[in-house]
Amino acid sequence: MRPLILITNDDGFAAKGLRTLDEIAQEFGDVVVMAPESNNSGQSHSITPTRPLRVRTVKESEGLNVYACDGTPVDCVKLALEYFCPRKPDLVLSGINHGSNSSINVLYSGTMGAVIEATICGYNAIGFSLLNHSHEADFGGCEPFVRTIVADVLANGLPENVSLNVNIPNLPKDQIKGIRVCHEARTQWLDSFERRIDPIGRPYWWLTGKFVCNELQEGSDEWALRNGYVSIVPTHPDFTNYPAIAPLRQRYE
Amino acid sequence: MRPLILITNDDGFAAKGLRTLDEIAQEFGDVVVMAPESNNSGQSHSITPTRPLRVRTVKESEGLNVYACDGTPVDCVKLALEYFCPRKPDLVLSGINHGSNSSINVLYSGTMGAVIEATICGYNAIGFSLLNHSHEADFGGCEPFVRTIVADVLANGLPENVSLNVNIPNLPKDQIKGIRVCHEARTQWLDSFERRIDPIGRPYWWLTGKFVCNELQEGSDEWALRNGYVSIVPTHPDFTNYPAIAPLRQRYE
Repeated sequence: MRPLILITNDDGFAAKGLRTLDEIAQEFGDVVVMAPESNNSGQSHSITPTRPLRVRTVKESEGLNVYACDGTPVDCVKLALEYFCPRKPDLVLSGINHGSNSSINVLYSGTMGAVIEATICGYNAIGFSLLNHSHEADFGGCEPFVRTIVADVLANGLPENVSLNVNIPNLPKDQIKGIRVCHEARTQWLDSFERRIDPIGRPYWWLTGKFVCNELQEGSDEWALRNGYVSIVPTHPDFTNYPAIAPLRQRYE
Repeated sequence: MRPLILITNDDGFAAKGLRTLDEIAQEFGDVVVMAPESNNSGQSHSITPTRPLRVRTVKESEGLNVYACDGTPVDCVKLALEYFCPRKPDLVLSGINHGSNSSINVLYSGTMGAVIEATICGYNAIGFSLLNHSHEADFGGCEPFVRTIVADVLANGLPENVSLNVNIPNLPKDQIKGIRVCHEARTQWLDSFERRIDPIGRPYWWLTGKFVCNELQEGSDEWALRNGYVSIVPTHPDFTNYPAIAPLRQRYE
């Protein structure tokens, strides 16, 4: 039996990045797509506890079933694994995201929320992102790297409880220098909101922000991307800062 | 000048747990509350890029300003730090959440999303949660522990880039045995969605789930809580699994 690959994203089921990913995935196995009906960028690891979800069948055909759901990317993963995959998937993919999910962006990312949820559920999972926000971004530079990494993970698996956060520079493939395995750079978004006045004279605030990278040394994902490499960060669903446990025990136990 | 403490939560500005927290915080300093208008449980680290936000002044008085915002807990933190705090806060608090944010729940939690955002922005931050979902939960058992931890962090700070995820058993204070500094237990939610049929005969899916703890040894937060201790997990905004970097370099570089 061919491998089964579940695909989701946060840009919505019709995004060009998802189509690129499902075409590559079909080279390796049967594909189920369960993705949000609409844009869920910035939805992080959020779930939908307060209302029911609906699922719409977009396409059911030999080797490719596509469903759209009105929940978040994490909802999509949970729902697909429980109700829409004909068997246990061999791999869960998310993306290809239109825009970076490097460094701190992994926390806000619905693309990576889905990947981390799949890890919690015990599946090998990979998130792919291209550093280009445009709806019509050119994913040509991504394709050989996506193919290489998918083939490798299908063949060799991943360390337990680890998924991959793959970010790809917005360059033609012959200008990408290779792959670097990295840690998340320490970054932040400053000047997060812009205050404006509506036509009736009342204030409102709109999310914006300036991305600031506090760490550009070799070894971080931001360094790799700015130097023309694909970055892979091994990612796990654990926020524990282990080195802080011992000193805090002195204070509180 | 008295310390300034910024408070948010994910249960909404009117929640009993937030009132408990702001009353304790006022013993230590001036307080700004910026919290969601309504329930934002399960909103994780999500932000609101697609629509403007509004802020409503609930109360402005000597030592206590309360604002309600129609964004997520992370939006609340960003917006308050940038526009509503009269000076740089000395401490950011979130909660007291009605319900556990131990183990894997930290990922879904809006309460902890806000805390981690404050850490990224360079502030000392603490999330408090009581293991009782009821709107009318009794926070009496929490109070001495909240007071102790707030006083300590105001006096001594926290390790760089580390916040605290504090969970408190649903017990009277004299039955709580003390504090344990822990790592996140490995857990997951199974059977996530219930499939139902609407009155017109169409299926819908509603989030539910069974919490399963795969790790109950001493040292994890689930062990501490089930044995009558308050758990503190030192938490950082970094999903990198460092031990996996070297073996993956062998495969990809």
